[in-house]
Amino acid sequence: MSADLRIAVLGVGMMGAFHADALATRVKGATVTVVNDFAADKAAEVAARIGARVVADPFEAIADPEVDAVLIATPGAAHAGQVQACLDAGKPVLCEKPLTTDIASSYALVQAEAKLDRPLVQLGFMRRFDAEYVTLHDLITSGGLGNPLLVHCTHRNPTVPEHFNSEFMIRDSVVHEVDVARFLLDEEITSVQVLRGVATSAAPEGTNDPMIVVFETTSGRLVTDEIYVRSGIAYEVRTEVVGEAGSAMIGLDQNLVRTTTDGRWGGTITPGFVERFGQAYDTELQRWVAAAKQGTIDGPGVWDGYAAVAVCEAGVQAVRTGEKVPVVMEARP
Amino acid sequence: MSADLRIAVLGVGMMGAFHADALATRVKGATVTVVNDFAADKAAEVAARIGARVVADPFEAIADPEVDAVLIATPGAAHAGQVQACLDAGKPVLCEKPLTTDIASSYALVQAEAKLDRPLVQLGFMRRFDAEYVTLHDLITSGGLGNPLLVHCTHRNPTVPEHFNSEFMIRDSVVHEVDVARFLLDEEITSVQVLRGVATSAAPEGTNDPMIVVFETTSGRLVTDEIYVRSGIAYEVRTEVVGEAGSAMIGLDQNLVRTTTDGRWGGTITPGFVERFGQAYDTELQRWVAAAKQGTIDGPGVWDGYAAVAVCEAGVQAVRTGEKVPVVMEARP
Amino acid sequence: MSADLRIAVLGVGMMGAFHADALATRVKGATVTVVNDFAADKAAEVAARIGARVVADPFEAIADPEVDAVLIATPGAAHAGQVQACLDAGKPVLCEKPLTTDIASSYALVQAEAKLDRPLVQLGFMRRFDAEYVTLHDLITSGGLGNPLLVHCTHRNPTVPEHFNSEFMIRDSVVHEVDVARFLLDEEITSVQVLRGVATSAAPEGTNDPMIVVFETTSGRLVTDEIYVRSGIAYEVRTEVVGEAGSAMIGLDQNLVRTTTDGRWGGTITPGFVERFGQAYDTELQRWVAAAKQGTIDGPGVWDGYAAVAVCEAGVQAVRTGEKVPVVMEARP
Amino acid sequence: MSADLRIAVLGVGMMGAFHADALATRVKGATVTVVNDFAADKAAEVAARIGARVVADPFEAIADPEVDAVLIATPGAAHAGQVQACLDAGKPVLCEKPLTTDIASSYALVQAEAKLDRPLVQLGFMRRFDAEYVTLHDLITSGGLGNPLLVHCTHRNPTVPEHFNSEFMIRDSVVHEVDVARFLLDEEITSVQVLRGVATSAAPEGTNDPMIVVFETTSGRLVTDEIYVRSGIAYEVRTEVVGEAGSAMIGLDQNLVRTTTDGRWGGTITPGFVERFGQAYDTELQRWVAAAKQGTIDGPGVWDGYAAVAVCEAGVQAVRTGEKVPVVMEARP
Repeated sequence: MSADLRIAVLGVGMMGAFHADALATRVKGATVTVVNDFAADKAAEVAARIGARVVADPFEAIADPEVDAVLIATPGAAHAGQVQACLDAGKPVLCEKPLTTDIASSYALVQAEAKLDRPLVQLGFMRRFDAEYVTLHDLITSGGLGNPLLVHCTHRNPTVPEHFNSEFMIRDSVVHEVDVARFLLDEEITSVQVLRGVATSAAPEGTNDPMIVVFETTSGRLVTDEIYVRSGIAYEVRTEVVGEAGSAMIGLDQNLVRTTTDGRWGGTITPGFVERFGQAYDTELQRWVAAAKQGTIDGPGVWDGYAAVAVCEAGVQAVRTGEKVPVVMEARP
Repeated sequence: MSADLRIAVLGVGMMGAFHADALATRVKGATVTVVNDFAADKAAEVAARIGARVVADPFEAIADPEVDAVLIATPGAAHAGQVQACLDAGKPVLCEKPLTTDIASSYALVQAEAKLDRPLVQLGFMRRFDAEYVTLHDLITSGGLGNPLLVHCTHRNPTVPEHFNSEFMIRDSVVHEVDVARFLLDEEITSVQVLRGVATSAAPEGTNDPMIVVFETTSGRLVTDEIYVRSGIAYEVRTEVVGEAGSAMIGLDQNLVRTTTDGRWGGTITPGFVERFGQAYDTELQRWVAAAKQGTIDGPGVWDGYAAVAVCEAGVQAVRTGEKVPVVMEARP
Repeated sequence: MSADLRIAVLGVGMMGAFHADALATRVKGATVTVVNDFAADKAAEVAARIGARVVADPFEAIADPEVDAVLIATPGAAHAGQVQACLDAGKPVLCEKPLTTDIASSYALVQAEAKLDRPLVQLGFMRRFDAEYVTLHDLITSGGLGNPLLVHCTHRNPTVPEHFNSEFMIRDSVVHEVDVARFLLDEEITSVQVLRGVATSAAPEGTNDPMIVVFETTSGRLVTDEIYVRSGIAYEVRTEVVGEAGSAMIGLDQNLVRTTTDGRWGGTITPGFVERFGQAYDTELQRWVAAAKQGTIDGPGVWDGYAAVAVCEAGVQAVRTGEKVPVVMEARP
Repeated sequence: MSADLRIAVLGVGMMGAFHADALATRVKGATVTVVNDFAADKAAEVAARIGARVVADPFEAIADPEVDAVLIATPGAAHAGQVQACLDAGKPVLCEKPLTTDIASSYALVQAEAKLDRPLVQLGFMRRFDAEYVTLHDLITSGGLGNPLLVHCTHRNPTVPEHFNSEFMIRDSVVHEVDVARFLLDEEITSVQVLRGVATSAAPEGTNDPMIVVFETTSGRLVTDEIYVRSGIAYEVRTEVVGEAGSAMIGLDQNLVRTTTDGRWGGTITPGFVERFGQAYDTELQRWVAAAKQGTIDGPGVWDGYAAVAVCEAGVQAVRTGEKVPVVMEARP
């Protein structure tokens, strides 16, 4: 077998540590050689657990001679510089969303990568690796639903921290449906409208939770998204595509142990994203590692990251203004 | 419109009162003119509620000039004489199971009816009028499942009175699956075997609850029936037919309001037979009334009642002996 | 038993004939004595089938001495005068939607009935009698979902006639969701917005099929409705209510004979409204007959009819303008 | 990270090649160094694909100094000698079912392993690693169903080769339910009865397909198993456990992309065991590799293999005799 891909993990908060552990224990052909985090004790703890070195400076970690590829799970504000450094070093990078925190810096990365002879930047939109989303995508592209006309999304979290206000809900949660819609429909989102109704009493004053977000696409299709992050129940992510020849829905039934233990039939719902998308994360990592060994990517790229940033920016404006806001995007190089 | 069918209801315990109320409030073209019960106060109460007369003697009730047809919901031991009286009077009768309490008297009724020019005796096997059983039956007869090979039945009650011992379970509960199997497969049951395992601690000493009952049919098909009357959960009645070209199941999902109210998806299960088979009872009565106005029946007849008695008798022997017991039946006239 | 309620059925097109047959064959305590239709042959055919008289003039039918109550299933344009005649005659009336074809005439009926000492006008919003909608309503009013925040509706027909354009879709189809939303949330709808995307190629030029309709209610709740009347598949009517303490959905799974006949699990979907709402129609009629015998109604009334007309009028404006249109309603007397 | 576990794969037919590919591409910490098969070309093909050496003699493969552990997927008749050789070499082994082809040789392996200080032999009962079976097992052991009373199994294949006769169905298919029952109930099976009904016309003369197999356990519980290997539909594996406090079922709904594409709701069913149990096989291998690095096993062991052989032997006798046949087992060392 070829040697393992040597990976630097930048940022080992919840998401980064989850990936580091997966790479160390479940992903074939990968070795985490370097761990970096601005919190030195956290970096040390993860590094010790998986047998890696701590490198205190993220740019040194990227440049480290024992690093073939980089997984970025640092806070969004750090992404622009770190992804650029990976591009400069010619090292494949898997960057958790968002690509960057503003449109201009995201587009700069699009342009920077376009000067290379191959893509190096993959975005961590893990749903594209979820078996149900893949089946749904295949059903659409095979024509099984006819021309898709509508997409309905539901995204509910049981609870979130206090700082999840309306804008944060767009940038952190709706961003997944942005990518899902683009992935399933294979076209860009051109406008965003946010419908605000009665908020749950669990939401802080001024936070519109739940909201209904409506996207329009290049060809004029409509995508609706219920985003409700304090539902109190479970992690529910559903998508329904309605086409000219049928409809298809994923995410309704889960954990298929049906019980009749209390005068009810039914089952449990996944409590969080790890349970719901665990397989997707593992598949994403396994396929990225295989691609990175070839010096490339296998999944959503820098353009998808840029588009998501642009749509979310319009979404934030839509929250602020209550109007339908057009998505402004530069030409694809 | 033609005048209402005038009905005597014999026996107004739980089942009879349920029927009397249905006839009085929901069944078109029917009027309960006479109510009879050995408990005079109960008869008076029901009669007052629905505007009928009490007739204290069941045979006088049958003979009453204001009675066109008879619904028998008295204890099983009274059925033989009462059904015979209806035949003698030439009046259509809907008799709740069992037809009679022994094989000989049931066969005597088969023979008595055979001397008439048309059927008068209908048995109260209401499942034949349940929309799901009808659809399943249609699916089989239309060839949608190919040749049916196996039938699997599940029959669970949440709780039953103390006197529901193993033999009672056969005569009172399994009797429904006897008729279901005969209805769906359109052939006779030829043997019964009862498999006894570990009993629930809710069962009295000596009562095999649950049991697995196995029928063989004339053509050699197998029917399995889990009968479990102290499940503690709900009223669950399922039937699955497995054929050469597919399988079909009814009764699994119920009350299709799906909720996600407590970290679970799912719904409630019908608590009892009224909720589960309410529509079937109403349809049974409506169609019987229409047929009785024409002096005939529209549903399972005296032969079906006789066959059920014969199979249950074998079932009781199977409980006692632990052996596979053949069903002994006379020739159909 | 008391004598049957004697009913005149005005209009025996598809809907009226369906009701006339139900009253004649399935509804206890009702006799259709008079049938009226502008098409004389159609009236004669139905009258002959159910044993009623034809009365050629609808106002004579209403006034007929052998008529205790009236069921109106004539074209909408005839409703205003016919309902007013029933009010004048003091006869209970069950009027199919719409109450009338414009807001002013509907409000006039509201005012006319308010002068009486009891309600006489019931609207034919049959979903309020559907077992699943009733359960959903009970779940909300019992607090089982907490404060309801959102309602999502889906309304798909397999196919419709050519004349079902966008405005017709509002008046004829969305009107049901208008009543469902008002019934479930127990408050008025205050605005309507219509989102128009890509239309199915099965729709005529200029018809927005499907559409997403969004209602706001008095308290600010949001209701979304996908209306898609040329889905090519089946009659699919779903409603999901999302509350602070859980969500509940009806209409997803139907006809619960699960089959595995072709490498798929699943079941069939109701092809049309008769199959989906047959029980609701029967229950509606049975309860209306019982109430009408008492000279009153038991279900949605003239105000519900008026509100539906007012919301649909706003909906039609919303289709025309693309804007969010406020619902204008007079005060409730 | 520690060095990879070096594995010899003996037998690279369908199952062995599947495992070899999984070890080479998806299982962390494992390298297949040696491939062996009596078919030299098959061995060469697989070895080339995954970068391993061919060793023509299975015992030399076991003894190879570059082999730390052994995966046996050879025909059952070869297992006894190969597993013994692994025990002699002190190398961990994952042996596909059956452990051996007769009771005596299986028990000899039980005794041989008992002389060692730790278990080395793991059996390839992959269902113990399936997420649904694990959840079901957890539900039972946590008391969520109360005392389990009954287990109902369904095992349907779409089609099998001609040589799958009744005895083969026991040894090759029912063996999985033997292990499932023992795993879920945590006790031994003490008798086997086989009920034979009407066979599908797809079965060769003399083959009882489907059959109903009934197990009794030490404590007297009943386990029913419908085994139907020519269903023509799909690969359907269901298990329902019925306890004193509720029931639970797995395997009914699959591939949860619900479609309404053809007047039906529903989804597809897994066509074969790879699709149904792919995750279970991967988890089995990953955990076995981790354990084997420690010189031990992590899953069903030699005793489970022996018990399965003993129960299947009784099952074959039950097929031949039509009687209930006791399972004869030696004492556990």
